[in-house]
Order: sequence, then C-alpha cells, then structure tokens
Amino acid sequence: MSAPSKRRLGIVLFPGFELLDVFGPAEMFGNLRNQIELVMVAAASGAVASAQGPAAIADVSLSDCPPLDMLLVPGGIGTRREVENATLLDWLRTRAAGAEIVMTVCTGTALLARAGVLDGRRATTNKRAFDWVASQGPGVEWVRPARWVEDGKFATSSGVSAGIDMALAVIERLYGEETARALEIGTEYDRHRDPSWDPFAEIHA
Amino acid sequence: MSAPSKRRLGIVLFPGFELLDVFGPAEMFGNLRNQIELVMVAAASGAVASAQGPAAIADVSLSDCPPLDMLLVPGGIGTRREVENATLLDWLRTRAAGAEIVMTVCTGTALLARAGVLDGRRATTNKRAFDWVASQGPGVEWVRPARWVEDGKFATSSGVSAGIDMALAVIERLYGEETARALEIGTEYDRHRDPSWDPFAEIHA
Repeated sequence: MSAPSKRRLGIVLFPGFELLDVFGPAEMFGNLRNQIELVMVAAASGAVASAQGPAAIADVSLSDCPPLDMLLVPGGIGTRREVENATLLDWLRTRAAGAEIVMTVCTGTALLARAGVLDGRRATTNKRAFDWVASQGPGVEWVRPARWVEDGKFATSSGVSAGIDMALAVIERLYGEETARALEIGTEYDRHRDPSWDPFAEIHA
Repeated sequence: MSAPSKRRLGIVLFPGFELLDVFGPAEMFGNLRNQIELVMVAAASGAVASAQGPAAIADVSLSDCPPLDMLLVPGGIGTRREVENATLLDWLRTRAAGAEIVMTVCTGTALLARAGVLDGRRATTNKRAFDWVASQGPGVEWVRPARWVEDGKFATSSGVSAGIDMALAVIERLYGEETARALEIGTEYDRHRDPSWDPFAEIHA
C-alpha cells in the first residue's frame, strides 16, 4: 500500500487575528506532520501581529500561496476591518472553491460569509459577536447554539477554543478515531465530541 | 486610587517548543493588555521554529531581556536538548529568583527542575513524559495526578492544554475571579477549576 499523499493546510493571518484561533488548530494539525503540511498565508509574507500582541509569521503572500487542500480562517478583532478587504474576500472565494475542507474559527466565519461562500449553508460563530457575524451573510443558515457545525466541506466553529474541538472532529473524519484520540491524549485536551454542546450561546443570549 | 502597574510576562522560546504550550497561556494573559505586557524571549531575537512547524518571534535575546515579573517556560520536544543548555539553565535560575510568578507547561517543568529551581517544591508535568521529567529533578516533590500544581510562586502544569487552566488559575489569584471568568467566557473555554482533575495520569500510567 502506498501512503496517501500529504494534504496542505493554509492558515490565513491578518493583523489582529486571535492567537488561539490559529494555534489551537495548528497544534492539532501540525502534530500530524506525516499527513499534513502547514502553510501560513497573509497579504504579504513575514510577521503579522495578533490581537493579543505576539506575531505569527506568514510563509507566503496570498498571491504566492501554493494550491491548498484545506483552508482555515481564524477570527479576532481584525475581522472587523478584513470584511471590507475585497482582495482577501476574492482570494477566499477562489481558494474555498478549490479546497477539500474549509474551516473557520470564531469571527473568521464573518469573512467567509461576507465572501458569499457560505450562502445556503449551515454555519456558526462566536456567541458574543453572533449578531454582527450573522449580518455579514444574510444568505447563511445560522446556527446559534453549536460548538461547531459541519456542512459538506465546510466546518465553522464557535468562539476561540471551539476551534480545537472542530479541528479534532475534522481530523477524525479524515484520519480516523484513533488518530484524533491520540492527539487528544498527547495534548491532554478535554475534548468536546458533541457539536451541539454550547453553554456560551445562553450566556451571551 | 491609582491603577496597579503593569506586570511583564516573559515567555521563553527555543527550537522545538510546543505551539499550544506557548499560545494557550499567551491568549489568556495577552487579553489582559491593560495589566500585562508579553515579551517573547529566546537565545537570540527573531524567528524560533516550534515542534509543529510554525515559528514564533522572540522580541529579545536572553541577555537583552528586561526585568520580568512573571516567567513562563513551555515544553515540547526541544526540551530534550535544552536540559543540557547551561546558558539557558543559568538564565532561568536567575530570572526565577527575581520573579513574582514562575510557570511551566508540560515538559517545560524539566527545564526548571534541571536548573534546581524546584528543589523541595511540589510540581507536575506532562503525564506521557513524566518519568523523564522527574529524572531531571530528584529533589522535586513530584505530583503525578494533577492538572496543575501551585506551590508558592511556582505553578507547574500537566500536558499542553493544561497550561490554559493553569494560566486562568494564576490570573484568578492575581486579578480576581471576575477577570478569569470574563476570559473563560470570551474565549468560550471549558475551564477546569479543579487542579486535581487528571484522567491522563491514569491513561499514561
């Protein structure tokens, strides 16, 4: 048997991205180094400052980004500006069309929604910013109480830490239960397996 | 009343650090931007590659690092080499002595233990690597089943994601329950409040 070829996951960075939206999923996907290659992508290659301060490094610019099998869009306060960034929205539209899996964390869902990519799809987002995000995509079937939502190739998650549970669910779908379980145990992460678990929807209602 | 002065938190980076060990706590401390200043510190300033691939950026070198009120040492596969790094161990010994709060995540505990800083203290670490870490500090009072352990100014945590619970416990001690709770809700994080919760100790026993 030949090993399946590696999937390339592109993680989008922009000024004011939320640290854990990026590095929670990156921890999980990045530990599958034989199966997945991570590529950080932004308007330009180089350092991109997070909402919390520390910067991440974009390996490539949007225009130099190689083909992607998977795409992850984080949230963060920077999304408030990026929903007006036509270059990024065009790029997301094109890359989402070509990808096998498209994921968002937190208010990252606003960017895909604004790009029109989620029209007619079920999706969720951060509960505190829910109304603002929902206003970016009137054609989306918004699901308020949800840790994460999978609809076809799209997986959208609730606030910040919910991205880790979504990442493990996607990993389980692509690579099996044992692989996801090994990551969960290796990182001593108390994983939520139920996508409908969401006490935060009520807290922020 | 005058506001308390900002605390400066130094997060140590080295090649092969574990992404979530750094960016889980950095998410929580970094959101307290009026109270805490984050400084990433490594052998040299600039990019430092994580165990999972993506690099973080060190703001300053060990020798240029300003005074620190708090110190956080992550784990990751790179700790296997760093326990032999006399320059880093000397720096940790000096900086731990001067800090108000000293934290480790996962196998980061091995570095503090090897530096002799935890002798006579209660401490914990990653459960999969427990025996190796414990061998780095025979004078430490090792606690195997524990999500995290606080002993005086030291807070040491179990594997990877446990650092987030430890960070919130330290934040609660320094800034109060409401502040910690606001972070938990804002990041939709299902926090463990009980430091003795540790199913992974049994799994890895």
